[in-house]
Amino acid sequence: MSDRISGILTPNITPVDSLGRIDEVTFRGYVDWLIDRGVDGLYPNGSTGEFVRFTAEERRRIVKIVVDQAAGRVPILAGAAEANVKETIAACEAYGEMGVRAVAIVAPFYYRLSEQGVYAYFREIADTVSVDVTLYNIPLFASPIEVGTVIRLASECPRVIGIKDSSGDLPNMLRMMAAIRPIRDDFSFLTGWDASLAPFLIAGVDGGTNATSGVVPELTRALHRAAKAGNVELAMQLQYQLLPLFDAMIGVGEFPEGFRAGVRSRGWDLGPGRVPLSDSQREAVARTQQEIDALVANVADFPSEQSLPTGTIEEIVQRVMSQIVSG
Amino acid sequence: MSDRISGILTPNITPVDSLGRIDEVTFRGYVDWLIDRGVDGLYPNGSTGEFVRFTAEERRRIVKIVVDQAAGRVPILAGAAEANVKETIAACEAYGEMGVRAVAIVAPFYYRLSEQGVYAYFREIADTVSVDVTLYNIPLFASPIEVGTVIRLASECPRVIGIKDSSGDLPNMLRMMAAIRPIRDDFSFLTGWDASLAPFLIAGVDGGTNATSGVVPELTRALHRAAKAGNVELAMQLQYQLLPLFDAMIGVGEFPEGFRAGVRSRGWDLGPGRVPLSDSQREAVARTQQEIDALVANVADFPSEQSLPTGTIEEIVQRVMSQIVSG
Amino acid sequence: MSDRISGILTPNITPVDSLGRIDEVTFRGYVDWLIDRGVDGLYPNGSTGEFVRFTAEERRRIVKIVVDQAAGRVPILAGAAEANVKETIAACEAYGEMGVRAVAIVAPFYYRLSEQGVYAYFREIADTVSVDVTLYNIPLFASPIEVGTVIRLASECPRVIGIKDSSGDLPNMLRMMAAIRPIRDDFSFLTGWDASLAPFLIAGVDGGTNATSGVVPELTRALHRAAKAGNVELAMQLQYQLLPLFDAMIGVGEFPEGFRAGVRSRGWDLGPGRVPLSDSQREAVARTQQEIDALVANVADFPSEQSLPTGTIEEIVQRVMSQIVSG
Amino acid sequence: MSDRISGILTPNITPVDSLGRIDEVTFRGYVDWLIDRGVDGLYPNGSTGEFVRFTAEERRRIVKIVVDQAAGRVPILAGAAEANVKETIAACEAYGEMGVRAVAIVAPFYYRLSEQGVYAYFREIADTVSVDVTLYNIPLFASPIEVGTVIRLASECPRVIGIKDSSGDLPNMLRMMAAIRPIRDDFSFLTGWDASLAPFLIAGVDGGTNATSGVVPELTRALHRAAKAGNVELAMQLQYQLLPLFDAMIGVGEFPEGFRAGVRSRGWDLGPGRVPLSDSQREAVARTQQEIDALVANVADFPSEQSLPTGTIEEIVQRVMSQIVSG
Repeated sequence: MSDRISGILTPNITPVDSLGRIDEVTFRGYVDWLIDRGVDGLYPNGSTGEFVRFTAEERRRIVKIVVDQAAGRVPILAGAAEANVKETIAACEAYGEMGVRAVAIVAPFYYRLSEQGVYAYFREIADTVSVDVTLYNIPLFASPIEVGTVIRLASECPRVIGIKDSSGDLPNMLRMMAAIRPIRDDFSFLTGWDASLAPFLIAGVDGGTNATSGVVPELTRALHRAAKAGNVELAMQLQYQLLPLFDAMIGVGEFPEGFRAGVRSRGWDLGPGRVPLSDSQREAVARTQQEIDALVANVADFPSEQSLPTGTIEEIVQRVMSQIVSG
Repeated sequence: MSDRISGILTPNITPVDSLGRIDEVTFRGYVDWLIDRGVDGLYPNGSTGEFVRFTAEERRRIVKIVVDQAAGRVPILAGAAEANVKETIAACEAYGEMGVRAVAIVAPFYYRLSEQGVYAYFREIADTVSVDVTLYNIPLFASPIEVGTVIRLASECPRVIGIKDSSGDLPNMLRMMAAIRPIRDDFSFLTGWDASLAPFLIAGVDGGTNATSGVVPELTRALHRAAKAGNVELAMQLQYQLLPLFDAMIGVGEFPEGFRAGVRSRGWDLGPGRVPLSDSQREAVARTQQEIDALVANVADFPSEQSLPTGTIEEIVQRVMSQIVSG
Repeated sequence: MSDRISGILTPNITPVDSLGRIDEVTFRGYVDWLIDRGVDGLYPNGSTGEFVRFTAEERRRIVKIVVDQAAGRVPILAGAAEANVKETIAACEAYGEMGVRAVAIVAPFYYRLSEQGVYAYFREIADTVSVDVTLYNIPLFASPIEVGTVIRLASECPRVIGIKDSSGDLPNMLRMMAAIRPIRDDFSFLTGWDASLAPFLIAGVDGGTNATSGVVPELTRALHRAAKAGNVELAMQLQYQLLPLFDAMIGVGEFPEGFRAGVRSRGWDLGPGRVPLSDSQREAVARTQQEIDALVANVADFPSEQSLPTGTIEEIVQRVMSQIVSG
Repeated sequence: MSDRISGILTPNITPVDSLGRIDEVTFRGYVDWLIDRGVDGLYPNGSTGEFVRFTAEERRRIVKIVVDQAAGRVPILAGAAEANVKETIAACEAYGEMGVRAVAIVAPFYYRLSEQGVYAYFREIADTVSVDVTLYNIPLFASPIEVGTVIRLASECPRVIGIKDSSGDLPNMLRMMAAIRPIRDDFSFLTGWDASLAPFLIAGVDGGTNATSGVVPELTRALHRAAKAGNVELAMQLQYQLLPLFDAMIGVGEFPEGFRAGVRSRGWDLGPGRVPLSDSQREAVARTQQEIDALVANVADFPSEQSLPTGTIEEIVQRVMSQIVSG
């Protein structure tokens, strides 16, 4: 269990300049900022990083920048999905040589593969690469990786060392943990479902890859530490703080535009996303910026992991809510 | 908060004889058995009770039997959805006079109503009846009751005193609790999602209406008490025991045939469900009976709520799993 | 093929008075009006008739009124789905004795049955009843009846004499016709998909049960006759007239409120639907009434089935569209 | 209307060799074969061509080969979707310079964009490129392009000259034709829904981009010509021949593996698809090859467009079906 991937990893927004090009200087600064604020790892080329909107060459450069800047301070989980198995394997090997802790591979998308096809895809990769692999299940966007497929791959492939699950399906996570924990001590369960991060952590997952951690890393870190220390009340209080911020960011413009607005509230201009917005969408983002600013300001002063708030959870929730409403 | 509905309520399977008629004698015995094993309430005419497969007259008789037999020992939550608003209101009043604690009303089904239509439906009922009402959200089967609609009804209608949510959407439950708890101390949040009952309880819901409680009421009671006492490890351990049993029962024949098989494992023959099964479905139920028997036998001897198991949660889970596998 | 059910059957709106009670006098007058305008059959207790919103007793009375008033002038297809198999069979027999041509039975709803459960349900009914049965597939609202199940029931059950399909899936209709036509000359294929009625008819279905025929029976009759006579241009022209009217009626309030507004345009006040509307929904219906009036007025003067319009279909469509826009 | 894209365009399977590399020699031969058999156009880099499984460089080469080999004999519609707007525009311009008739651009995929985002995406492209653009709507795989968005883009953007719709939604096709035909004589409506190609053509679409035309181009050509000549009976007869072949090819392995098997029946080995198959999937493809061979052999001798078969459509269908069954 010692080197199981755990904690909160930040799926990095990819900073771009006014011409839409990767903004390396800002990117390096933002990486430092995240590490300084306690994130447990970085995850370039995830959904938050808009990996599909960058070219194959750009994706390599993105991982290179992050690995180089992190310089071993935190582990790197690199999104390595490319156009096909051959290209994906090549990316895996390249990232392995760069020094990432593991790669994360989303199931094939566009076409909806069958369960068997998903298995065959990951099996071929896992049998070939010389870097650790985490499965990335996000059925909203890509072919689903069924519970049975995860269990089978965990049983057969030593290289498969974790699942990053963004389905939000907590019972399925329990089913996977029940089946895999007894046979794989090194297998990591990570959730991408920020809206119920605390319940997932309390239920026993190792950590999360959460877009909100790119905006309020202090909060998600405290939430993770509270949950792992068995402080359910604090973890839930922090979850209640996280939720309205998440809702505000997820609901505006096209994903991940709202998270770019969130980072702006922290002083970072990472540029616009790589998909054009309509005029009314741009106005909506501008309008929501104030709301997001207020929510971020509220959590900026969140309780530290040392200070246990007094009172029942309901009193805490009411207090938090009234702060937010009056914020 | 004193009289908020809480704990584990059993959505009653409706016992029938070999001709498919309501089996009142068995029903009364089964009600006693459930109460003796510590369920916190009974819920006739729910989905588990196949309410749509009984006639309007039979539904009245079902509630009458349960109320009469419970005789005030536990509160009754009676499913009151009928063909239309007028009939539903009449059923509400009838059940109120019988002495139920509250009625539970599922949103209109067959047609998929809009959010506005769902609101108008519940508003008209809540403004008319003289019995407490809980909303029953089960989007898999009926028109969804949106989070905003629940909040609006909670704000406007004193008669609406709770939500029974079978969507399994934990973030939505958090959103509702965050909005309603500060304004309604008497409003109850109940989950119908057995597969993650412990995480819901730990996250703060008041209780659940869970079909599994009709099969292993001792286990669901212990799970609820552990969660409410802050014993996360025990609650999760019990959840891991509940899950494979739930999976076995939910997956066989047509719902709720697997739960009828589960109760059979406890010595109760409640008859067959009210929908015909094909030959191969009947064979599948028979085959699965053994598996269900074994799972039920395993949890029969579950740890009491007083005895805290030692060891980390992962050790416990592995122990539980190995018991189940070897069971 | 002689007595195959064919043509356009009207799924009757159920007229109610200001207190929501069945308005028998208006109902009888509306039945006469429909028959006078050439509908090929009547279909009480369908989705348009809000069958689930009436009580079991009311459903019997509805069929009785329609059969009695039609007095053999057109065949009656009676919706016979009740709470369970036993009740459904009893309704079938009652309607058979009343003299209906056949019953129509929707697959079980609320619960989503498996393909096997759907088969077992219809098989038990078909093996028992002494009236002809049509299957009613409407996967939006009820358990789907798969293509394979329809073919199997058509092969095994002489009593099953047709399918009323409201899935809108034209390829599936072709698949069913390809498999069943060679073995069952008496089996009828009816579509409930008004929005592409002409293409379905041209592709070879026998007819339709179409809510729009309750509003503009002259138009749907002409469309059916044109398609069956091989006059594709006229059939498509009439389809283009039907479509905006259908869209206006389907999109307002809760179904079938818009169709009640449509009938109002023809001079019939059949009362409100049996589900409450919110204030804003009521206002929307009132606003849309004018648009529906104009669309109905436009088709009132539609080309008769004798008069073939001149010009290419595109010229016709443009002319029709410009009429509608300026209407 | 003169230069409206029409007829049947073949979305090209991309031939690869045993190492998975583009097989240019075979590709050129296959292009000739298709043109010789009367396809009305070619469509490289469509879904059938597995465009997402090739690299950006390979996609350029694929179009180059097809344009070069066709040498003006038929128009080329080139799939031009790349990672983002900038890359997509560059591909459009490159393909325009190569001499394609138009590009086809699928809505952004992976992320599910809002209606506004889809509009903004296509608007930016259409305002920039100097080549004609067709919209490609395939909601099963990519963000849906709503009817209103198509109408708006057709109204505002002269460069947008058509829609290739693979939703299978015939009413939506009628809605688009009703709104756009009166204002855009040069706008083309193409369906990608092989399973009801004849009904779409009879209903007035200009043509189709159909994967089956890569296997039985003679049949799809005859079907198109029959429908456009008003010979509904023949068109439907051919549709009934096409359907079981389509069903056999679509249902095996991962798409488009079954279509590769279909082309193999015509003597062309285009290699395996670019996604790995499990052992059991490979066995299933091998097993299905015989069925596909038989179906292809049956349609090889299909009625020419000159010969009108005698008898009613039902007799024809029965004859066709018995041929297929005995085939």
